Amino acid sequence: MPKESEINLVYNYIDQNLNRFVSRIQEFVRQPSISAENRGVQEAAKLLASYFKKIGCQNVEIVPTRRHPVVYAELDSNAETTLLVYMMYDTQPVDDEKLWVSPPFEANIVPLDLPSGKVSALIGRGSINTKGPLITFINAVEAIVSTLGKLPVNLKFIAEGEEELGSPHLPDFVNEYKNKLKGAKATIFPSFLEDTWGKVKLSLGNKGIVYFELEASGKNWGKGPIEFDIHSSNKAWIDSPTWRLIDALSTMAKDNGRTITIDGFYDDVVEPSEEDEKLLKELAKSFEPEKIKETLKVKEFIFDENDKYNLLKKFLFSTTLNIDGIWSGYIGPGSKTVLPHKATCKVDVRLVPNQNDPNKIISLIRRHLDNRGYNDIEIRQLNGYKWSKTSVNHPVVQAVISSIHSFNKDVEIWPLTAGSAPMYLFNDVLEAPAVHLGLGHGARAHSPNEYIVIKGNKYVSGIDIAHKFFVKFLFNFGK
Amino acid sequence: MPKESEINLVYNYIDQNLNRFVSRIQEFVRQPSISAENRGVQEAAKLLASYFKKIGCQNVEIVPTRRHPVVYAELDSNAETTLLVYMMYDTQPVDDEKLWVSPPFEANIVPLDLPSGKVSALIGRGSINTKGPLITFINAVEAIVSTLGKLPVNLKFIAEGEEELGSPHLPDFVNEYKNKLKGAKATIFPSFLEDTWGKVKLSLGNKGIVYFELEASGKNWGKGPIEFDIHSSNKAWIDSPTWRLIDALSTMAKDNGRTITIDGFYDDVVEPSEEDEKLLKELAKSFEPEKIKETLKVKEFIFDENDKYNLLKKFLFSTTLNIDGIWSGYIGPGSKTVLPHKATCKVDVRLVPNQNDPNKIISLIRRHLDNRGYNDIEIRQLNGYKWSKTSVNHPVVQAVISSIHSFNKDVEIWPLTAGSAPMYLFNDVLEAPAVHLGLGHGARAHSPNEYIVIKGNKYVSGIDIAHKFFVKFLFNFGK
Repeated sequence: MPKESEINLVYNYIDQNLNRFVSRIQEFVRQPSISAENRGVQEAAKLLASYFKKIGCQNVEIVPTRRHPVVYAELDSNAETTLLVYMMYDTQPVDDEKLWVSPPFEANIVPLDLPSGKVSALIGRGSINTKGPLITFINAVEAIVSTLGKLPVNLKFIAEGEEELGSPHLPDFVNEYKNKLKGAKATIFPSFLEDTWGKVKLSLGNKGIVYFELEASGKNWGKGPIEFDIHSSNKAWIDSPTWRLIDALSTMAKDNGRTITIDGFYDDVVEPSEEDEKLLKELAKSFEPEKIKETLKVKEFIFDENDKYNLLKKFLFSTTLNIDGIWSGYIGPGSKTVLPHKATCKVDVRLVPNQNDPNKIISLIRRHLDNRGYNDIEIRQLNGYKWSKTSVNHPVVQAVISSIHSFNKDVEIWPLTAGSAPMYLFNDVLEAPAVHLGLGHGARAHSPNEYIVIKGNKYVSGIDIAHKFFVKFLFNFGK
Repeated sequence: MPKESEINLVYNYIDQNLNRFVSRIQEFVRQPSISAENRGVQEAAKLLASYFKKIGCQNVEIVPTRRHPVVYAELDSNAETTLLVYMMYDTQPVDDEKLWVSPPFEANIVPLDLPSGKVSALIGRGSINTKGPLITFINAVEAIVSTLGKLPVNLKFIAEGEEELGSPHLPDFVNEYKNKLKGAKATIFPSFLEDTWGKVKLSLGNKGIVYFELEASGKNWGKGPIEFDIHSSNKAWIDSPTWRLIDALSTMAKDNGRTITIDGFYDDVVEPSEEDEKLLKELAKSFEPEKIKETLKVKEFIFDENDKYNLLKKFLFSTTLNIDGIWSGYIGPGSKTVLPHKATCKVDVRLVPNQNDPNKIISLIRRHLDNRGYNDIEIRQLNGYKWSKTSVNHPVVQAVISSIHSFNKDVEIWPLTAGSAPMYLFNDVLEAPAVHLGLGHGARAHSPNEYIVIKGNKYVSGIDIAHKFFVKFLFNFGK
């Protein structure tokens, strides 16, 4: 364990190299890596591999999968303990570029008014989710290695390029590399955990997800237009696949999608465990629904926001059936009159304890549709994985918490986050429980003007602290 | 009345000038005039005006409206009778260009296999709907004027550029030009009335239409994302405008859209009149549902096709609620996870006797939605006009029928067509009842590979006959 003075040497290195470290973040954000569109993913993988080499990693590999590669790297420090570092280097698409105040791949640093005050922020697709935290962690490792020669723990990096697709081939990779990965004590996922008021939110798990498309088509149905959209006057004697999809969807949920009415859908959902209930109650004390509304620019929740315990419980422990997109027929300007030959929607289901099997969800929906005569409606599954949870008492979580405290920050512990990540591979398959960690702030993941804070304010940490936190954690955990 | 030899002179002129006449059709198809996208409409109006001048029209005017101009022209022949000639020079958009065998604005003439045998056809957007028939009529007028000096009737041309938008400003034009237009005996709409087997279908009226958009948005609703699409994990505690639109739509129809469940929607719909019933029964004898299915590439009708009377009655005298298009959220490739902030659909309602007031339909839908708490769902009306019908006994209809017979063609009389055109302006406002007319064939209006036949086969007339028919009709009517 290094003396305080040794950590201060590392911190000094960070301060002296901060401009270069930020430039490295910009460089990586400027390299598009949109997995859904196969845009720049290979180039991003190569760039990332070059960073791993620069900081002294061994066995840097770009491991092909059936779609986008995993970048794998080891940093052996001859230490007792090994940590897996899970990262994602892909991002969501950009389909509303005109709404961005700075182009999504320029990574410009601009002034930004947060509710908590002025900051400067790097604007770019993937900046918070998660290229900013990823590069910050790599920079922090560089700072330790350059200053002290080696880390207090061994690291094995697993950076995937398909997280935004639902990590379809990460299971293959984990299976293939199982022998190299096993024996690690825990898995960390570098993030920036501060919200817009600098409040630190530590999540101990993730919901699972199943993502699929539903399609009603004349071709499958045998009714309606089969090959192409036809003149809409034919609606009087030819059926409509579009109405069919709407009818089918309307059997799957009610109350504007609040209640899922798919037969057996809720059967596996359980109440929060005793530990989770305790964490939820504690969390409810400090939880500020107003700030969520501010960030998302929404006016109200489905549930009473004064009953914070229930609001949080619903958020974190409810399964959902969301329509991510729907399209059919003519969607341009003006009044084109067609009877469409097909209608398609994209749907995601978030999985909570104990919805353990994504395939079961698909089967339930198939059966639900079949039982109502909708056997022609096609289900195309795009991905699916289960939920995961790490105990608050695990040493990795305790090290994260004590590191946060050492920066004079309180931490709000979330038993689960509503977002999905394939952490079950670590928690369940590799038995190296996973935890998000990090100081710093960013927001608008998946939305226009995604950002991370570079220069903070009274509440929100700047990018310097974000770097130093990872250093502190590695030493705390390595103790 | 000219002797047969005089008509033959005109026919000879057509035969000698046919290549040039077809080139004129190509030239007009090559000039895009997509009213919904405001693409080429002004240029097309100018081109059309130049044609009217070339054939000797007086008072050729490009009359501005609040959107696209009407091209107006008079051809005074010092005759007793005046006919109005309604035309449309705008077309539907092209949004599936890759499905076209020949580019939609090249107007190439290519071999085509019809069910009735090989033909050569001009492929292009607007070729059948209705640039081909429009230019053919103009060519026919040129042939008469060039050969005989003048026509047996006076003509007043009204060519609108907004038919595909539902003719929003044609009522303004008709009102403004009422004094010039009144006193005409009838209105003709040049068309190619043969189907793919050369069978002539003469329609005596049109359904009306109301076209509108429905939109559910967080902004109007106050629930759900207000300003932009947000991460779909928020579905657990934030509402979905997309599900809201689906819920609302599902209250408006059932049985895959076959039955409209909007309160009071069917109240004004009446049974066919005695004359219409008679025409329907006659029509049922020769009506071949198989050929409709062939043309539309559909496998089945909603109703039993062996009961032809009922099938036709449903087609022609049913009101409909069709979804022309629907869109919300992410509609690209792969799995982007968003909770959309709005969902929109385009809907058309076809109006039959006696649904006389398009605004009443909008009011019914508004009240239906309001009564169910959907007062936040916006209705944006894009257009609307009533149905129209001309009696089979009107002299203009009798002249059309006898002209068709003189080409040794039988004619199938349709009391109404399921498509919409704003003929009520002529039938009701100007008291000059309207009728479609024309030999020749084309199809796939509003679809890829829209075409007209140039060189016919054993069943289908070529473009020469299409020209000669208009000549014959003008003399028959002018008698």
